Amino acid sequence: MIRIIIDAMGGDNAPRSNVEGAVLALQESSEIEIILTGREREITPFLSGKEYDKARLTIVNAEEVIETGEPPAAAIRQKKDSSIVVGMRMLKEGSADAFVSCGSTGAVLVGGQLIAGRLPGVRRPALAVVMPTQKGPTLLIDCGANVDAKPENLVQFAHMGALYMKYILKVDDPTVGLVNIGTEEEKGNALTRETYPLLKNEPGLRFIGNAEVRDLPAGVCDVAVCEAFTGNVITKMYEGVAKSLFSEIKGAMMSTTRGKLGGLLVKPSLKKLLKTFDGSEFGGAPLLGLSGLVVKAHGNSEAVQVKNAVLQCIGFKKNDLSDKIVSALKKEEE
Amino acid sequence: MIRIIIDAMGGDNAPRSNVEGAVLALQESSEIEIILTGREREITPFLSGKEYDKARLTIVNAEEVIETGEPPAAAIRQKKDSSIVVGMRMLKEGSADAFVSCGSTGAVLVGGQLIAGRLPGVRRPALAVVMPTQKGPTLLIDCGANVDAKPENLVQFAHMGALYMKYILKVDDPTVGLVNIGTEEEKGNALTRETYPLLKNEPGLRFIGNAEVRDLPAGVCDVAVCEAFTGNVITKMYEGVAKSLFSEIKGAMMSTTRGKLGGLLVKPSLKKLLKTFDGSEFGGAPLLGLSGLVVKAHGNSEAVQVKNAVLQCIGFKKNDLSDKIVSALKKEEE
Repeated sequence: MIRIIIDAMGGDNAPRSNVEGAVLALQESSEIEIILTGREREITPFLSGKEYDKARLTIVNAEEVIETGEPPAAAIRQKKDSSIVVGMRMLKEGSADAFVSCGSTGAVLVGGQLIAGRLPGVRRPALAVVMPTQKGPTLLIDCGANVDAKPENLVQFAHMGALYMKYILKVDDPTVGLVNIGTEEEKGNALTRETYPLLKNEPGLRFIGNAEVRDLPAGVCDVAVCEAFTGNVITKMYEGVAKSLFSEIKGAMMSTTRGKLGGLLVKPSLKKLLKTFDGSEFGGAPLLGLSGLVVKAHGNSEAVQVKNAVLQCIGFKKNDLSDKIVSALKKEEE
Repeated sequence: MIRIIIDAMGGDNAPRSNVEGAVLALQESSEIEIILTGREREITPFLSGKEYDKARLTIVNAEEVIETGEPPAAAIRQKKDSSIVVGMRMLKEGSADAFVSCGSTGAVLVGGQLIAGRLPGVRRPALAVVMPTQKGPTLLIDCGANVDAKPENLVQFAHMGALYMKYILKVDDPTVGLVNIGTEEEKGNALTRETYPLLKNEPGLRFIGNAEVRDLPAGVCDVAVCEAFTGNVITKMYEGVAKSLFSEIKGAMMSTTRGKLGGLLVKPSLKKLLKTFDGSEFGGAPLLGLSGLVVKAHGNSEAVQVKNAVLQCIGFKKNDLSDKIVSALKKEEE
């Protein structure tokens, strides 16, 4: 049995989406047990009338809730009875294999590092975001909150990201690119220029050189390695440009009668397209390098996204990804 | 008379687009003189039969051409008889007020700094890109080749960018935002955290705090300040996401008969939309902080974009933007 904790109180649609997601996951997989952390009295109403294997669902009461706007480090330290802190503690103690949250990214990242702790040999954990591209998913790592990484951190990110793509998203022999503003080796800033030769000479990685930012949406590599400020800029621009463009397209279509009619006709095609550009089908963003898997799902996740994030944890555990990360980084040290 | 040099040999459509752009600019404005640098024998055929004021057009022969792939610094040093080096020299000597090129960005940036030189008080010149947004243009500065800037550089970028928006794009009292991965003051990396208080306390700027990257395409500020690695990531993501999305939209529409018919109907609206998202109507990207104006236009510019880049130089000169930059930075030093 794989034991997965869900932060019942995290996200815009909590606790409903999280509880319903738990039920969906239990219905879909017989290999998992789920522990919901949060206010029991707010959780139970959403369970009533649902059909699922009750023996595989536990609620662990936690009275406090960490809000999205709160300074993460202070929240983690002070709200000891919050759904995130209680869940992370159970992960640390080995009472569970994975922790899934749609709550505050900052609190999940800080909690993961302060409470769950790093795997042996991991200098810095990294948040990996699955970015939809024209050729399928690209894993962008690091998109977390620890900015200004060092070259040796990026080499570890490359290993962790490649293992994730290989074993979880089943991409055979994944390619690794260094996110950069040009393709030539000498391009970029101090960090990318120092990192390039390290990645080039690193055994066990299929390094393809610099991944020019402009080519990322086309799907130029399977794993795109960068430090977290850049990773955040990329995911935010992706989201921002797509949002603005779709809103403008809608506006442009609605501005004329002809456009309105055409809009009605192209709607199904565009809807299908929007789905390919929606990363949530790949589950949440894993925080790689921690003892135990921590997955951050989008704040606006609905039950089905919560379910996907939960099911994604099965492959992680089954493939002993933590062990694989530890041994890949051990080889790197030698 | 405002004297503007055009690098006749730069860009994908050179020399045709540059020569035709020169003719269009001369037809549209009686205030300018144009100097074309490049291979005279390749330029003249495109002038024959055109109607324009011949007294206001000069060709200065330059035999060499700097290609886009060449290492910029070496090219500028070695190709002394290239259209870029010859043009930059004339700018330096005061034989012209501005230099416009669709050629190699690297060579234009390096040439601008090595040959034209910086204005007094300018620590680092910056390439400013006009980014179309849902609310009109946002000036993103710096998008150049000098990465890893210091906080004091960013403060100068803010002044130069605000003056450009005010006097050239006629935005009254432009707002300045610091590009960041969150809105709170303490967000970001070492550079943004050090820069924030400097911008906040800087007189003469309408600083609105952090400009969250996700909100840039919606038009959250008039001037968005960042160091060049980030600036390049943003412009490249903008271009990459828009390109991928439009290509996918086209594909989605063509995949069904219904979509095809709808696509035909929405085509005019989408075309109009594409135009609002096309930065070239604002002219080229100015390299601010140099003695004399240097404008880098897109490599795939056609005659009309070259014309726009040329006409944009008129406002720069008429408003004495160089003097305004020098005096703004002098105040900053005091």
